[in-house]
Amino acid sequence: MSKQPAEATVESLHRIFTVPEAPDSTLGRIEQHLSENLEDFLSNHIVAREKPLQEIERGFSESAIPEQPEYVSDHTEVLLNKLVAHSVHTASPRFIGHMTSALPYFLLPLAKLMVGLNQNLVKVETSKAFTPMERQVLGMLHHLVYSESEHFYTKWMHSAEHSLGAFCSGGTVANITALWVARNRVLAPQGDFKGITAEGLVAGLEHYGYKRLVILVSERGHYSLSKAADLLGIGRKNIIAIPTDEHNRIQLEALKETCADVTAQGGKVMAIVGIAGTTETGHIDPIDALADIAEAYETHLHIDAAWGGATLLSNKHRELMQGIERADSVTIDAHKQMYVPMGAGMVIFKTPHLARSIEYHAEYVIRRGSKDLGSHTLEGSRPGMAMMVYSALHVIGRKGYELLINKGIDKAKYFAELIAQQDDFEVITQPELCLLTYRYIPAELKGALKAASPEQIKAVTPLLNSLTRFIQKSQRETGQSFVSRTKLTPYQYAHQATVVFRTVLANPLTTHEMLRDILKEQRAIAAKAHTILADLNTQARKAGLL
Amino acid sequence: MSKQPAEATVESLHRIFTVPEAPDSTLGRIEQHLSENLEDFLSNHIVAREKPLQEIERGFSESAIPEQPEYVSDHTEVLLNKLVAHSVHTASPRFIGHMTSALPYFLLPLAKLMVGLNQNLVKVETSKAFTPMERQVLGMLHHLVYSESEHFYTKWMHSAEHSLGAFCSGGTVANITALWVARNRVLAPQGDFKGITAEGLVAGLEHYGYKRLVILVSERGHYSLSKAADLLGIGRKNIIAIPTDEHNRIQLEALKETCADVTAQGGKVMAIVGIAGTTETGHIDPIDALADIAEAYETHLHIDAAWGGATLLSNKHRELMQGIERADSVTIDAHKQMYVPMGAGMVIFKTPHLARSIEYHAEYVIRRGSKDLGSHTLEGSRPGMAMMVYSALHVIGRKGYELLINKGIDKAKYFAELIAQQDDFEVITQPELCLLTYRYIPAELKGALKAASPEQIKAVTPLLNSLTRFIQKSQRETGQSFVSRTKLTPYQYAHQATVVFRTVLANPLTTHEMLRDILKEQRAIAAKAHTILADLNTQARKAGLL
Repeated sequence: MSKQPAEATVESLHRIFTVPEAPDSTLGRIEQHLSENLEDFLSNHIVAREKPLQEIERGFSESAIPEQPEYVSDHTEVLLNKLVAHSVHTASPRFIGHMTSALPYFLLPLAKLMVGLNQNLVKVETSKAFTPMERQVLGMLHHLVYSESEHFYTKWMHSAEHSLGAFCSGGTVANITALWVARNRVLAPQGDFKGITAEGLVAGLEHYGYKRLVILVSERGHYSLSKAADLLGIGRKNIIAIPTDEHNRIQLEALKETCADVTAQGGKVMAIVGIAGTTETGHIDPIDALADIAEAYETHLHIDAAWGGATLLSNKHRELMQGIERADSVTIDAHKQMYVPMGAGMVIFKTPHLARSIEYHAEYVIRRGSKDLGSHTLEGSRPGMAMMVYSALHVIGRKGYELLINKGIDKAKYFAELIAQQDDFEVITQPELCLLTYRYIPAELKGALKAASPEQIKAVTPLLNSLTRFIQKSQRETGQSFVSRTKLTPYQYAHQATVVFRTVLANPLTTHEMLRDILKEQRAIAAKAHTILADLNTQARKAGLL
Repeated sequence: MSKQPAEATVESLHRIFTVPEAPDSTLGRIEQHLSENLEDFLSNHIVAREKPLQEIERGFSESAIPEQPEYVSDHTEVLLNKLVAHSVHTASPRFIGHMTSALPYFLLPLAKLMVGLNQNLVKVETSKAFTPMERQVLGMLHHLVYSESEHFYTKWMHSAEHSLGAFCSGGTVANITALWVARNRVLAPQGDFKGITAEGLVAGLEHYGYKRLVILVSERGHYSLSKAADLLGIGRKNIIAIPTDEHNRIQLEALKETCADVTAQGGKVMAIVGIAGTTETGHIDPIDALADIAEAYETHLHIDAAWGGATLLSNKHRELMQGIERADSVTIDAHKQMYVPMGAGMVIFKTPHLARSIEYHAEYVIRRGSKDLGSHTLEGSRPGMAMMVYSALHVIGRKGYELLINKGIDKAKYFAELIAQQDDFEVITQPELCLLTYRYIPAELKGALKAASPEQIKAVTPLLNSLTRFIQKSQRETGQSFVSRTKLTPYQYAHQATVVFRTVLANPLTTHEMLRDILKEQRAIAAKAHTILADLNTQARKAGLL
């Protein structure tokens, strides 16, 4: 701190490229702390009580790039105090509102190795062995979903012109890639028409005589699908949300009707998207039945299993996804339930030639006939993240993943029972995977509301929503634990827009005791919401509920 | 190695999440080696002589996910021998064919910190201080390009409904995002028309009465633009390649004519894309003149400065990009000339409301009014890579970057002179940034070809191409040094498709001596190409060149 300000010189620059950080430097000490006890590092450096975002922003408001270099040690102190201190403890077992869990230790040094190697997976020339390694990871995930023969994988896994999938930065890019493939197949080259890739969407629709392309997905579909509909030129009004049943699953009759209507009116169903683990409630669409409908309408079936895909690693629970092997494409995020760091999404293609509809080549990279991965990905230059998945698959193993998945689901069932036992909490959606939603409800209202009329429900829901919001925010700000919140339209509550707590129980370090503590803390916060509770009481009396 | 195979148990799993890797474990030792001497680690573990890709593939051919877990130490040995050994030494100062350079040391521990924190930048809830930090990085890059007032940045940098840019996994996503914005602006909501976002491309064209949308870019444009044209539904035939002049810059007259033609025929120029640093030759389009044309046709001007953008950090050379402050959007890759690891692209928007044309919201994430970054990015969940850029900007500083950029350009000029001095090498494209292309040419042909007729050039070019390919491949396989190759249509050689060596001199550790060695090695390889040289001689005599 008391050092002279640094001066940019050729020598000082040469140093940062050639002289490593000393073990007793600030950064060296941080690294050691990270390596020896990550949880202790995070708990020590991330402050618990939330600082308002606007205050944090003040520390990040300078727009000019600093002229002079800063010493690494000085800069590291700044990073710790300004950035790390006010980041989110995503690895905490008490933070059960995210899809981010604690990570296995060995991935930390591997992350460093990955950056040290700094491969670029766009082409073999800048990644060499990383290319077959990534192809194998995609092949293993393909095998997990489709269980094809050994012959199949020998033939296709390393084929230059084919691809069993695409590694992506995340599930959004994976979903976009899948729908891009679907669109390009529907408007493929035919006769004089050179395909949508060359001629564009308007020419494609004209050639095939379709009035419009439509994507069908349940109302629980991830927002990335809307993004895709926009990006691909389909338009968001052509992504039709199909209603769900009382278990948050797509209504098959409604889906069939919509397929029939769209087709009768001269439109084409470009893709049906099934969800295997909705982001909000973790429910899984009936995939086998979706595959029947997709076959009947000769349409692409995509399964968004960004969250739930890892369930296939559990022999006990994989039947929840029965029929997934009939899907044309499947999205799986390894940075969710496969316990690798952020930045590892995948889309898997049933048949190896599917990706040809989005194939690209250039002279200096991804030349025709090369095995360059860049010819079948939306992204260009990409890091070697597949190594993280490769290592996790080997170090954890299928059986290890099965234990993790099963444990998460068991824990969610335990939590659901625990909540149901309380006088003043209620489960809103039961867990199918390790996700569930619930809310706090004053004891005197819990029973009454079960037998309430739609009008009575309507009368108290806004105040119950305020209460849930208040509890969730207060708990987050205190910083000891965290559940997220979302808005659902529950079947049992006359489809009223209902704010709920959302929990994801994937962190293997979360204990039953922590779950009990979370409810205790929420109850204590609720007791302080005097005004909301008073209004709720008045409103409930007025509505005849009390 | 002699240990019993691991068995997946709850205890063993708990261990990998809670017990750190010991410093004397295989992974611990690797990490120490990486920290103490990265170059030594890479040189020791990456084998120099290339193993054929097919042999490497054999080690990555199993399709089944292993049932049982592997010990981390065993797995690490496998990683070292199968993957690291056959990866590419991208950091080597003798590997001057990639856009990947050596990285400063401090980024290695920071990479570990980033993974340890495992933030998700899609929303504030999972990233907190990382959100304003990323917004500041985008603001700093915005300031670098547009130099707006302090008031401007105070007002917009942290505004919930606005965005000065989008952080992306790389330049391809950045370019796609920019053209997505351009397309959605051209077909924005108007009167009863709800905009392309809602209604799709067909309705948009109909509403505005455009026969087609067109993107104009020089023939040196990056292949990501074709990808974008496909993805956005425009079609690749509607991305029109404009010819370049003898300096690989877009021909302005040809561009103007095409704009006029497209417009006269009822089409709309959706975007003009200027290139600031072509991937193959490093040349920069005349941006100011492009801005004039874009203004005249009221079209979006996007500058693809994925490679060259960092040149703005050099006060000496930033005038090469004069007019860039008139562009509507600019792509800059930090993982190229800003010396951060793979996975850091950015698109910067001139006006803060541009990103609203691609805005998304959902209930459980990126709620309306929140400052969640996910509302203005193509990607969803994303890692905290912006921290790498933030730290590099502070530790290197603007002046440090200026030294690095200037040094690279000086080195390229030195290399161009060195090549020109040789009897048997010739520069094909002169460096404007730190890129240049050249080739080996037998001494007796070098002079003769300068005065040759197009027919004579045509006669020998295929054999010269074979020679260049042979040299480039042999050198790569030997593994001591690496230049890449591409195919150009040089002005001075009657636009014949000419294979050239391509070098990128961004690695600050590359010395003049290494450059001399590379030429020597290439000359020695050429001397062994007996058949090609004999054929070339015969052909040159036949064509009257010798």
